[in-house]
Amino acid sequence: MSIGDGGDRLARVALTWLTEPGNRVVWQLVQAQGAEDTLKQIVDGDVPDASLRTAVVARAGLGDPRRVAEVALRRGERLGARVVTPSDDEWPARVESLATLELDIPGRFNRDVRPPLCLWVRGGRPLGEALDRSVAIVGARAATPYGVHVTEDLAFGIAEQDWTIVSGGAFGIDAAAHRAALSAGGSTIAVLACGVDRPYPMGNAALFERIADCGLLMSEWLPGADPLRHRFLIRNRVIAAAAVGTVVVEAAARSGAMQTMSRTVALNRHAMIVPGPVTSAMSVGCHELLRRYPQTRVVTTVAHVLDEIGKIGEYIAEPARVAGHTRDDLDEESALILEAMPQRGTLGPEQLAARAGLALRTVLQRLSLLETLGLLTRRNDGVALLPAARQGAERTAMPPPSPLSAPANGEVVKANPEGQPSPAD
Amino acid sequence: MSIGDGGDRLARVALTWLTEPGNRVVWQLVQAQGAEDTLKQIVDGDVPDASLRTAVVARAGLGDPRRVAEVALRRGERLGARVVTPSDDEWPARVESLATLELDIPGRFNRDVRPPLCLWVRGGRPLGEALDRSVAIVGARAATPYGVHVTEDLAFGIAEQDWTIVSGGAFGIDAAAHRAALSAGGSTIAVLACGVDRPYPMGNAALFERIADCGLLMSEWLPGADPLRHRFLIRNRVIAAAAVGTVVVEAAARSGAMQTMSRTVALNRHAMIVPGPVTSAMSVGCHELLRRYPQTRVVTTVAHVLDEIGKIGEYIAEPARVAGHTRDDLDEESALILEAMPQRGTLGPEQLAARAGLALRTVLQRLSLLETLGLLTRRNDGVALLPAARQGAERTAMPPPSPLSAPANGEVVKANPEGQPSPAD
Repeated sequence: MSIGDGGDRLARVALTWLTEPGNRVVWQLVQAQGAEDTLKQIVDGDVPDASLRTAVVARAGLGDPRRVAEVALRRGERLGARVVTPSDDEWPARVESLATLELDIPGRFNRDVRPPLCLWVRGGRPLGEALDRSVAIVGARAATPYGVHVTEDLAFGIAEQDWTIVSGGAFGIDAAAHRAALSAGGSTIAVLACGVDRPYPMGNAALFERIADCGLLMSEWLPGADPLRHRFLIRNRVIAAAAVGTVVVEAAARSGAMQTMSRTVALNRHAMIVPGPVTSAMSVGCHELLRRYPQTRVVTTVAHVLDEIGKIGEYIAEPARVAGHTRDDLDEESALILEAMPQRGTLGPEQLAARAGLALRTVLQRLSLLETLGLLTRRNDGVALLPAARQGAERTAMPPPSPLSAPANGEVVKANPEGQPSPAD
Repeated sequence: MSIGDGGDRLARVALTWLTEPGNRVVWQLVQAQGAEDTLKQIVDGDVPDASLRTAVVARAGLGDPRRVAEVALRRGERLGARVVTPSDDEWPARVESLATLELDIPGRFNRDVRPPLCLWVRGGRPLGEALDRSVAIVGARAATPYGVHVTEDLAFGIAEQDWTIVSGGAFGIDAAAHRAALSAGGSTIAVLACGVDRPYPMGNAALFERIADCGLLMSEWLPGADPLRHRFLIRNRVIAAAAVGTVVVEAAARSGAMQTMSRTVALNRHAMIVPGPVTSAMSVGCHELLRRYPQTRVVTTVAHVLDEIGKIGEYIAEPARVAGHTRDDLDEESALILEAMPQRGTLGPEQLAARAGLALRTVLQRLSLLETLGLLTRRNDGVALLPAARQGAERTAMPPPSPLSAPANGEVVKANPEGQPSPAD
């Protein structure tokens, strides 16, 4: 660690303490001029934002930010916690996507969405590596036995496939996800809204110690920081951004898990929902998310989750295969449309319908989907394949007919009207 | 009933017996030259389709089609069943949408999708009027107590709002839907895959009598016809087409209810799914439908169903309001985009993003949705409002911020780091 780097690290810790994480103005200043100059500017009272200024003035009365940061770093060293910053190899690149997150809602929760300045970590594994293949599983504190059971099944199965589980530190779904991942001998990360030395809730203290031993505890806040109410909502953006995708298992209406999922959707991450009984208050939020966001996907098994997140995982590893995977998931009509497209050049929708043997209406319906998936594009002179679909076409055979398209009953029409009733409805 | 009309009616009954309902070739001939000439042509052996010819030859050996139809009509008269044809005022117009249904799957279930030639009806209310405001509720025979409970809640509440319930005649979800509608003093229609005089399954015999008294029994098949296995799958298209929308409550994998829903989707009808525990085999089909068809909507309450089907109902009653309703359901970004659009002329996506105060990426994502909803169109020189959106803009105020956008916790940042933990996750 160079002196300059140490200065940057210290300044990031000090800025986090002085301004709370995620602040747009602070993050922008740090991007423009670095953490040390930003800290100096703010400590000197030059804060270009009224509400931030109020917060900074109140904080500054509690101590010198650099001194607070030094104490925190020493405290962290004593308890085996390190500070990770963007200059470290283990910095998780995915959280940088918060740089462009726009929630389009007024007020503070849109203001506090920028990437972390630094992350406190307890545990042996490099943070970035652990998050590289990771799935967040979040949900209600007051989970039902159903929710806990499904969470355990999913987290165990996903962890077994060498994917890291990410969650908060709450009772209920969070704790169930961590426990199941640990049972599977897998990796799990608890993203806390307080210091990594603060076992909150206390009832999960032993669990946090096991996570620190076998996985990672992670937080934006300084050791000793309290789990204030608003911090959980600010923390949620990091869960959504750090993981490849997020699964919500049970969520009450207007819950934190719903908020995490809204950020997942805004970040264009894989947004997965486990449905539940419509009679359960703990599934109301899940169903509401499915109704609200067409981008969310129902998942009910480990295979569904792996299928969903696998697209990105394999995209990183082997870009050429992503299209093939997307194609495998297409409905039959969309697959027929892709098959009918010429590898180069364009085709009008009517010609396309004729070549695919589909109704024009069906073709027009599917074009939006295929465009959204990045497989086709609409140009002035017609529809054209995009490179992803071309690679896919070279690699992927026609998907097999879907189960829906091939009813179990394939018998031919019986000419004789007499027969044994064996209805299929 | 004129003689000519009587001849048409008789020919339609005879053709249904001779060729089974839904046959493409037969329906096309009837459209082109009428039922009587088509019957004559087929009886004379001029059948322009090999598999149909085989079926007709086998049937014709069982009796003279006209004579069979005469006997059926007399039998129907005795048991209070009437034949309804397209020339009757009570013919349900919506089933004619089957004229263009294309399933894009090979084989017989794509062949047998055309509109009914005639419908047998038992019960006092005019069929078309009863189906005008109707919702199909279908699902598993082997329903769980959960599925029966939810079905009862939905069917009772929907029937109370003066919507007719439509379902099959099976045990489980079908029977629960009818019973609840009758309990509510509402209207219900059982669409059978056998003669309206054949109580199948026998255990529902008393229920069918109550339905005939207070609602309608309806079938394409002649009195006395057996509930053959393939008939249930052919029948399902009529349920999907006759109702404004279809709700699937519980469905096993590859079940008849899933097949009904695939037709609902293909017909662009409101396709609604009630989720359930992912641990229940009886909800597997529901979740699979949600995963397979982006057009399907999660519904968990009577209000959700009424909201969904109400759009069409109000469209018929008051076309100008449909856009307003669509707009109310839009996510906030999409609403902002619509607000930002000029009433006339076009705007490029970049200008639109600037005017809406949104990221370009967000705008591009939302354009497909808005286009699908028929609110915007993409032209060579940019994006333009469609008339539906213009009417909506004149009638609809900005939707209120969604619950998700306004977290319960609206407190300002506390400058003091000490506070009572009351986390929100």
